[in-house]
Amino acid sequence: MKTHINDSFWQRYIQLIRTEMIPYQWRVLNDEAGIAIDKERDDDNIPSDKSNAIENLKIAAGQKEGHHYGYLFQDTDVYKWLESAANTYAIKPDEKLKSMMDDVAVLIEEAQEDDGYISTYYQIDAPEQKFRRLFESHELYSAGHLIEASVAYYKATGEDRLISVSKKLVVCIQNAFGPEEGKIHGADGHQEIELALVRLYEVTGDQSYLDLSEWFLEIRGQDPDFYQKQLDENKKMGIRHEKTWGIDPVYLQAHKPVPEQEEAVGHAVRLVYMATAMAEVAYHNKNQKLLKAAKSLWKSIVTKRLYITGGIGSTVHGEAFTFDYDLPNDTMYCETCASIGLMFFARAMMKNEVDAEYADIMERALYNTVISGMALDGKHFFYVNPLEVDPKSSKRDPGKSHVKPTRPSWFGCACCPPNLARTLTSLDRYIASTTTDSLSVHLYMGMEGTYELEDQMIKLKQTTQMPYEGEVTLEIKEVVHPFTLRLRIPSWAEDFKLKVNDIPIEIERSDGYAMIEITSDATLSLTFAMPVLEWQSHPLVKEDKGKVAVQRGPFVYCIEEEDNEALLHLYTLADKPEPKFSEYERLGDFVALEGTAEKILIDDSWSGVLYKAGIKKQRTEMKKLTFIPYHLWANRSTGEMRVWVDRKQGKDV
Amino acid sequence: MKTHINDSFWQRYIQLIRTEMIPYQWRVLNDEAGIAIDKERDDDNIPSDKSNAIENLKIAAGQKEGHHYGYLFQDTDVYKWLESAANTYAIKPDEKLKSMMDDVAVLIEEAQEDDGYISTYYQIDAPEQKFRRLFESHELYSAGHLIEASVAYYKATGEDRLISVSKKLVVCIQNAFGPEEGKIHGADGHQEIELALVRLYEVTGDQSYLDLSEWFLEIRGQDPDFYQKQLDENKKMGIRHEKTWGIDPVYLQAHKPVPEQEEAVGHAVRLVYMATAMAEVAYHNKNQKLLKAAKSLWKSIVTKRLYITGGIGSTVHGEAFTFDYDLPNDTMYCETCASIGLMFFARAMMKNEVDAEYADIMERALYNTVISGMALDGKHFFYVNPLEVDPKSSKRDPGKSHVKPTRPSWFGCACCPPNLARTLTSLDRYIASTTTDSLSVHLYMGMEGTYELEDQMIKLKQTTQMPYEGEVTLEIKEVVHPFTLRLRIPSWAEDFKLKVNDIPIEIERSDGYAMIEITSDATLSLTFAMPVLEWQSHPLVKEDKGKVAVQRGPFVYCIEEEDNEALLHLYTLADKPEPKFSEYERLGDFVALEGTAEKILIDDSWSGVLYKAGIKKQRTEMKKLTFIPYHLWANRSTGEMRVWVDRKQGKDV
Repeated sequence: MKTHINDSFWQRYIQLIRTEMIPYQWRVLNDEAGIAIDKERDDDNIPSDKSNAIENLKIAAGQKEGHHYGYLFQDTDVYKWLESAANTYAIKPDEKLKSMMDDVAVLIEEAQEDDGYISTYYQIDAPEQKFRRLFESHELYSAGHLIEASVAYYKATGEDRLISVSKKLVVCIQNAFGPEEGKIHGADGHQEIELALVRLYEVTGDQSYLDLSEWFLEIRGQDPDFYQKQLDENKKMGIRHEKTWGIDPVYLQAHKPVPEQEEAVGHAVRLVYMATAMAEVAYHNKNQKLLKAAKSLWKSIVTKRLYITGGIGSTVHGEAFTFDYDLPNDTMYCETCASIGLMFFARAMMKNEVDAEYADIMERALYNTVISGMALDGKHFFYVNPLEVDPKSSKRDPGKSHVKPTRPSWFGCACCPPNLARTLTSLDRYIASTTTDSLSVHLYMGMEGTYELEDQMIKLKQTTQMPYEGEVTLEIKEVVHPFTLRLRIPSWAEDFKLKVNDIPIEIERSDGYAMIEITSDATLSLTFAMPVLEWQSHPLVKEDKGKVAVQRGPFVYCIEEEDNEALLHLYTLADKPEPKFSEYERLGDFVALEGTAEKILIDDSWSGVLYKAGIKKQRTEMKKLTFIPYHLWANRSTGEMRVWVDRKQGKDV
Repeated sequence: MKTHINDSFWQRYIQLIRTEMIPYQWRVLNDEAGIAIDKERDDDNIPSDKSNAIENLKIAAGQKEGHHYGYLFQDTDVYKWLESAANTYAIKPDEKLKSMMDDVAVLIEEAQEDDGYISTYYQIDAPEQKFRRLFESHELYSAGHLIEASVAYYKATGEDRLISVSKKLVVCIQNAFGPEEGKIHGADGHQEIELALVRLYEVTGDQSYLDLSEWFLEIRGQDPDFYQKQLDENKKMGIRHEKTWGIDPVYLQAHKPVPEQEEAVGHAVRLVYMATAMAEVAYHNKNQKLLKAAKSLWKSIVTKRLYITGGIGSTVHGEAFTFDYDLPNDTMYCETCASIGLMFFARAMMKNEVDAEYADIMERALYNTVISGMALDGKHFFYVNPLEVDPKSSKRDPGKSHVKPTRPSWFGCACCPPNLARTLTSLDRYIASTTTDSLSVHLYMGMEGTYELEDQMIKLKQTTQMPYEGEVTLEIKEVVHPFTLRLRIPSWAEDFKLKVNDIPIEIERSDGYAMIEITSDATLSLTFAMPVLEWQSHPLVKEDKGKVAVQRGPFVYCIEEEDNEALLHLYTLADKPEPKFSEYERLGDFVALEGTAEKILIDDSWSGVLYKAGIKKQRTEMKKLTFIPYHLWANRSTGEMRVWVDRKQGKDV
């Protein structure tokens, strides 16, 4: 089931990761000279002038002396780098990269303790606190990223040295956590181990990993006071550590047992990482309760707490969900990592049921918030992906200081850039999925791959101009037995046409997919109408009243000050924007949209006047309004941007 | 120049202060049993389960043992109480109250040190830090409130025991601060001493107080690093204290010399307290530079940074101004105290020039944000006065947790309630002002008063149904020499009629006042049209686009969930609301307004749907929309409220 993406849109990203991100991140992890780290994060407690991540591992391995430096989860920067590097190596082997990876693998082996434990902060500076401050320790979160890296390394190289590290680490975790008396009856504050254990199960087939994941999911929230009690116990035992923040069980998704959780609450990344594990465990272990809860969480997100850009997390405070229909456009968090996690969640749900809603949301997140996280130069990254920005507000309203109008180069807490790198280098996993007798195609992009069904290996090749044009040719080869081919009809395609071996066929959608019985090799040609869509929000989304968001194909669009005169809130879109195929400097090829808008004129009568009595209509002038795909914003200049644009309301269009 | 307010609208408030607030606050200050103090403020560092304010003074006076408890400026709760009590006593003497006031006066005398110093935190627990952490110490802020209380006590009782305390305190300050070498070349982080010194000058005639005030205004911002340098010096000297927050010269209005400040920035209360002193000193000392700067600050506020309700301070972060036209309705601060300070500032500006803009803004603040600060029961108080509230957001969006949907009963930091009390009990000062040959009437309310002009004491009596009806009878008596009477024509009155001794006269406005030469006793009858006004905001105020705020007379109106079905953002006002004179339970007499609005219907097509393609107009139904005066909100139930309401736009109305 090896897949190769040869699509020009995605090749650019994958290339950037290989040539820019991986070497750059490597230098950061090694504190090489000339790497300036921005002090952009408003976190005085955390030093961000160097990474020290490799150094921490060396100290833990006994190769160096010194103290740990950085976040409690600083190790994960190394693990995520390793995972991206392995994914990149799998796409295109490269001996220099292999040797860097191997050096890291050896270092990890040496840093791991005899009992399997590894987490450098605790090894170096606080061994008495191991597994004793789970609300914030990130030890199992770090373990999860090590496990994910070990799986990627194994898949890319066939070498199992890091799988051995992971197995030893899991033994250590099994010795400390579990239902038995004397073990810890709780899970890590930040979910991640749960989904990583599933990955380890997938390559080893060891059921105990799956069961441990299931146990972590089921112990969580059994006692909402678990984390506080752990700290209270420490106090009694004389174990001192600074409590750096308050414990809120809702933030930690530990306010009630996981199978009973129905609403997406708390830290957004944690929620989707947890939900991914729920869906995976539900699938492998046939756990209906977890599946039901995962479905509830999915519905809670996509019907009430999801931005049109595929972003989640309505508030910076706790980087968290808030409440139904609370989707402010200029104060939200919409972390890149959270949308990456939403892709994980969607993919995991598709294992349980093939319904185009999952792929639709996965695509929405991927083509908008996820890739918005990275600049076109591959060296600057957004953590926060706003739907409305005014640089004045970012600078002078402290409540919006987290909303950056340009991508900073690097942060002390470097979670998003390496997460992007590992996700985009494993994009092949998201294109299609199989059952014993079916192949479901979820994403359309230029690719070739082999998919394993019962007793046959089907070859699939896609040729397409997606995401810009809605034509896809799918070549199906090496068909031995009949099987069902499911082709997703994207929600943005109002219409589609299908030819099989040049013969037009009429076909109904089922759960958002066109279903065709394939009995022998065939060439399918699928054509989607790719109209410009104007989306309205549910009336309970206050911030979007009277506004539309524009979409074409998978791309949500935005307006930027660079293309349109400033004061973007003064525009009211008058008609539906249409595609415009001219070229835009510094943005490469893409399809812009152009519409006309009434723009309010601020005339002299407002000079020195803040409020005026009367409801006289403001004078306006007609202006061209240019839209670009959202993910391209902030690549040219610093200025205003908005996704939701005031719209002249139709009657019954 | 004694004035008595006998107006039923204001009598209610003054009565509440006498019968509820003053006795209640007295019990709080004395930590009497049965006083529950809400822990509503999100400030874990500050204990708020008791006041300890009187206790602190007793400890400083050597009557008790113990440590200081509460804020660094806890003493001011006592001083503001005393000022309110004195104002109340001046309105209606009461021996019991006098004896309470006298006990406090004696206690203050005894707490004051021999060199004049008084500030209980430093006296009790940190004498080595006196005047050494000015960015946050509030020592001169507290001194200012003591001086203001001493002036009020003197005016109410004729006794100068507290004036003596103030004089001694000023000597202490003069010994420590000033241009001479060895003295401190800076001002208190929180302005207040500057305006208090003017009050002391006004009753003593001692020019040195005025000059000290001027010096504090002129030293401020000469060195923006003054506060940081002071802390650095302490470090060298081995004086330790915790720095509880970062020093931002903009927050402290010390980023540039005061006479050069043109924009209202930083902590809103501090800014208007400072600006009040600037206008007062400019008037008394004929300081044109300060007057020019004060005018700039005034213009900056009223043309770019003022809410329609007379609120100021666009952000909770630093309780501060942000930038021009940044007036969010649901995250702002709009502290009651800041609008009180804006009244001070307006009144001080009117000493320099009689222009109705000052009185208009003063009235706007007073009748809306200021009295909104107090519940009708006199026992619950807003610090934050929002223009839009959704209780769900207050509860579940941490970025709006400061916006309370109901008035809490008391806070650890009790600045606003006593500030309200001292202001409303001195409202007589705001009604009119004089020069040698003129009397200017700024506010209309039932009152009788005597005003001193050159060589004559003019009697003025107003009889009116204001603020509900626009008719005022003004009786002018004891006229000896001709003088000019200025009658303010409020900005909300589109038209006015004037009769002098029953004879209609035509008169032009000059700077917003009708000017009449009075040569002998006369009865004037002034009639204002009191139309319902719909205000639009400047187009740069993003949050108000397409919305109106409704006003009648001095009252800005709002809609509340109590009178209108919830989901207030779904309404679009279709016509101008009209007065409706029916009675409203639990709110007493007032004039409600009623209009019709289109309300969006959330039909079944939205079930499980967050975004819908197309711009089909939402289905609506016509609904009655009831408006009540803003200051009355949150007196009946907890629910949504908003001032700015979506409005069907007119063509050329």
